[in-house]
Amino acid sequence: MISNLSSLFVRTLRDDPAAAEVPSHRWLVRAGYIRRAAPGIYSWLPLGLKVLQKVESIVREEMEAIGAQEVHFPALLPREPYEQTNRWTEYGDNLFRVVDRKGADMLLGPTHEEMFTLLVKDLYSSYKDLPLSLFQIQTKYRDEARPRAGLLRGREFVMKDSYSFDIDQDGLEASYQAHREAYIKIFTRLGLDFVIVAAMAGAMGGSRSEEFLAVAANGEDTFVRSPGGYAANVEAVRVAPPAAQPIEAAPAMAIVATPDTGTIAGVVDLLNAEHARADRPWTGADTLKNVVFLVTAPDGTTSPLALGLPGDREVDAKRLEAALEPSVATPFTAEDFERYPDLLVGFISPVSLDGTRVLGEESVTKIRYVVDPRVVDGTVWVTGANVVDEHLSGVTAGRDFVADGVLDVAEVREGDPAPDGSGPLTLARGIEMGHIFQLGKKYAESLDLKVLDQNGKLQVVTMGSYGVGVSRAVAAVAEATCDDKGLCWPVGLAPYPVHIVATGKDQAVFDEAARIAAELDAEGVDVLVDDRKASPGVKFADAEILGMPVILVIGRGLAEGKVELRDRRTGERNEVAVGDAVAAISELLAR
Amino acid sequence: MISNLSSLFVRTLRDDPAAAEVPSHRWLVRAGYIRRAAPGIYSWLPLGLKVLQKVESIVREEMEAIGAQEVHFPALLPREPYEQTNRWTEYGDNLFRVVDRKGADMLLGPTHEEMFTLLVKDLYSSYKDLPLSLFQIQTKYRDEARPRAGLLRGREFVMKDSYSFDIDQDGLEASYQAHREAYIKIFTRLGLDFVIVAAMAGAMGGSRSEEFLAVAANGEDTFVRSPGGYAANVEAVRVAPPAAQPIEAAPAMAIVATPDTGTIAGVVDLLNAEHARADRPWTGADTLKNVVFLVTAPDGTTSPLALGLPGDREVDAKRLEAALEPSVATPFTAEDFERYPDLLVGFISPVSLDGTRVLGEESVTKIRYVVDPRVVDGTVWVTGANVVDEHLSGVTAGRDFVADGVLDVAEVREGDPAPDGSGPLTLARGIEMGHIFQLGKKYAESLDLKVLDQNGKLQVVTMGSYGVGVSRAVAAVAEATCDDKGLCWPVGLAPYPVHIVATGKDQAVFDEAARIAAELDAEGVDVLVDDRKASPGVKFADAEILGMPVILVIGRGLAEGKVELRDRRTGERNEVAVGDAVAAISELLAR
Repeated sequence: MISNLSSLFVRTLRDDPAAAEVPSHRWLVRAGYIRRAAPGIYSWLPLGLKVLQKVESIVREEMEAIGAQEVHFPALLPREPYEQTNRWTEYGDNLFRVVDRKGADMLLGPTHEEMFTLLVKDLYSSYKDLPLSLFQIQTKYRDEARPRAGLLRGREFVMKDSYSFDIDQDGLEASYQAHREAYIKIFTRLGLDFVIVAAMAGAMGGSRSEEFLAVAANGEDTFVRSPGGYAANVEAVRVAPPAAQPIEAAPAMAIVATPDTGTIAGVVDLLNAEHARADRPWTGADTLKNVVFLVTAPDGTTSPLALGLPGDREVDAKRLEAALEPSVATPFTAEDFERYPDLLVGFISPVSLDGTRVLGEESVTKIRYVVDPRVVDGTVWVTGANVVDEHLSGVTAGRDFVADGVLDVAEVREGDPAPDGSGPLTLARGIEMGHIFQLGKKYAESLDLKVLDQNGKLQVVTMGSYGVGVSRAVAAVAEATCDDKGLCWPVGLAPYPVHIVATGKDQAVFDEAARIAAELDAEGVDVLVDDRKASPGVKFADAEILGMPVILVIGRGLAEGKVELRDRRTGERNEVAVGDAVAAISELLAR
Repeated sequence: MISNLSSLFVRTLRDDPAAAEVPSHRWLVRAGYIRRAAPGIYSWLPLGLKVLQKVESIVREEMEAIGAQEVHFPALLPREPYEQTNRWTEYGDNLFRVVDRKGADMLLGPTHEEMFTLLVKDLYSSYKDLPLSLFQIQTKYRDEARPRAGLLRGREFVMKDSYSFDIDQDGLEASYQAHREAYIKIFTRLGLDFVIVAAMAGAMGGSRSEEFLAVAANGEDTFVRSPGGYAANVEAVRVAPPAAQPIEAAPAMAIVATPDTGTIAGVVDLLNAEHARADRPWTGADTLKNVVFLVTAPDGTTSPLALGLPGDREVDAKRLEAALEPSVATPFTAEDFERYPDLLVGFISPVSLDGTRVLGEESVTKIRYVVDPRVVDGTVWVTGANVVDEHLSGVTAGRDFVADGVLDVAEVREGDPAPDGSGPLTLARGIEMGHIFQLGKKYAESLDLKVLDQNGKLQVVTMGSYGVGVSRAVAAVAEATCDDKGLCWPVGLAPYPVHIVATGKDQAVFDEAARIAAELDAEGVDVLVDDRKASPGVKFADAEILGMPVILVIGRGLAEGKVELRDRRTGERNEVAVGDAVAAISELLAR
């Protein structure tokens, strides 16, 4: 296909769009690939749509290669199935809800586990029908609280979602592995630098789950890696608890007066000044910080929750969100504290010398008390005394208090040990491109998907769920490849692999541009020809913004039989004889 | 591509689905091509999706062939643009409305004139940029009051919509003609028997408009044709008014006592019995029937409207709906009549001997009075007298009453003259497959789409709007080709052009099926192989239901080197030597 820029529906913009947070968003808009229609909702212009369709083709090919069969579900769905799995409620404000003219509740599908489960239930009845993998490339909807970064987090977006159906866990493992390998092929073909990390299952339920993250400084996800090969989304990191300490070795509790200290740092300074230890100075890591949240369940009921964690660590909001999902925790407000006068801010403790414990099952106020995994039996802490201006030292877990549970949501730090002992963690950021889940029987049970097994008994089917962000991939590739001059597509995704810039007013130049374009087109290479009446400067700048990988400049040199070949990716420029141009282009495309 | 029925995600059903109104719906569900997800909302299973994708490809190719450029808009759209063109209101209950988490009003796009207009306004500024045609293949939403017939009238459906932008009417004519020709190619390639008929522009506004109807007994649309080539959707038929008659020749008005007549037929009988005419008997066509409607505007305001039409014709509800759109007319109820005690049901008249006129601008009750186009000046009628049990004869249009306007909504009958004098009309039914409109400047004006013209002056752009029902086409082709045994696809749309049925338990049969399939696949022919352990009867019945055009049966005859080739379309069966099978299949596919 040959397109002429004079008639192509595209205009480059000189200025960044409002609220362009990341380069991919800025350049996709400035290059005329997409346009914002509403917050988090974009229209695809011809160039952008071509890239999107190429991503779709790659995804489709790799899904078909593992035997997955393509189907297509509606986006507008009835409430009932989502009611049966409780997601109608759990999705909360993230769900776009619609009431039809007859008053029926409907929704715009954020993901389709329910519909796939019911469809398989409708058609299949025997273990002989399995295994089965179905996929669709479809438009999804989530009413994000903070749509951002253009296509990276939108409210209407294209996903490939697939679902596997197996009679047993072995089958599920095989289906999961097949998808995992297909995803590796997909993201490799997209040219993305990606990592596979352990992930939280989140609202999807289920057990084993991994994410494919495109490494990107502007990514929303933080992940960790160790030298020994551990990799996890930071939300999924499960701290390996230290060994329990012998309780007998622990010191006795003692009151420490801590007036005017204000912060944990203040308490630590006071301890070092007035209660210095012989072996090592006090640090924040010796203190047990107790923070209180109000937890709101999907049904709207609320309850307080207190968390004890080492005083030198903050709570990671995303890890907290992921751990409690679908419930939502917010830090106690002044108003919340007013309802619990026993909670003395700055001095809260799971233990009190005078017996007025305010946290945990045996406490006065019966606030559920959970601790960081580092708070194992025998560890000794300085913590509040439930008395103003007093702390307690020598507070020993398992002796002086017993927590109601463990909640692993403290920040993960560069240098923290990997939970599998594979070395210190480094942190990096990424864009979630794919997610694979072993759902297990959760949806099949809720929706009663059973088939007859080898023994003629009804057996609940076990499922996997697998997603690729198709429209997001367009932005992720742009993010990874763009530079300060514009977009820069890999050959396999470029709307046109070749962009011919014809400069000047000499008709011979335009004729030669058309001739070379025709020759390339005959070889199956799509070409964009800048045939406009514009200055060379405008044309060169547009070529860089539009981002086709190979740029051929035909201008004055043509009189001497010369044209210039530019590699948009490396910036390399070479003069070549016009007769060698097509061969040189093919060579560059193949590189 | 080769697929085996043993693993293909499809199950044929023995029984018709509930509420299967038309054969295409019945068979698409029974053959496992689609499944209902909600009223008027369908999921596409693998076989159905393949047909849909083939239709999409044909449409895309023909749109690109006329230089239209593909884009893709969101389905979830902001309210504002639709507010500016008043369609937010005019669409009424047909629009799916959504309120997002921030309280913003949104909608699921029923059609995208607004968004396209705004996008072109965003990018283009000069007549030099024009002409431009853009298209998308996209999911649309209309909350139909009566979704029916499966894919034929759904609430979520796939459409190709395109829009042309031109600087002047000549340009619009050219763009319209290009689309018209592309549509002829599309529907020809789909193998549909179609007619192009004059159409109403309806809610789209604009002037010239034609519909492409697939001729189908179960179609929702009624259209007319004349021997001389006139063709129109029945809603668009504009009756050619007869010549006005000299008023001087008209008889004087006279009171006719019509007690106990009840109906128009009763009045006619009485006239023939008591006031017989010498030249010809009285008929219903001599009477002027006055019917009253309550008209509700999109903003909810209501007003009465009276229509005078020949007593032998009914009002055609669809013609009335189309003529008044976006307002809606409902016949006066008993309650409505109570509010207008002057209106004596059965005796309503636009004229009264005693001066108590109840219809028309000069009437007592000031009800707007419109007439059928046949009621021209000088025509003479028998109509009500606004007095119980009395009619008036000799009532002459233009002398005794003057209507406030013309409303052409009476039923069109087989044998009525074509308005262009091209002979008597015949009526038939069809499925609306495509619609092309000359919108003109309506949307460009509402949304202020102007470009600089040749003289440097801002000029409102003139637009066309063109739609193809893509998912509907799947049903229309099924409707045209299915028989009492199942589906029967044309080669170009079949999910697999060839269906190989391997019967019996002989492994050699299955091996030969696989070998022939591989040979066809190598030639680029997709093949479905029935490799299941099922009886020949089950397999033959399924092959007929599934509807691939060419069926190759491999069974016992293989031992003697024979296979059977069946043409699903004609029912023809031929034994061929196994070595000739591939050549025979190719020959049959090319037929």
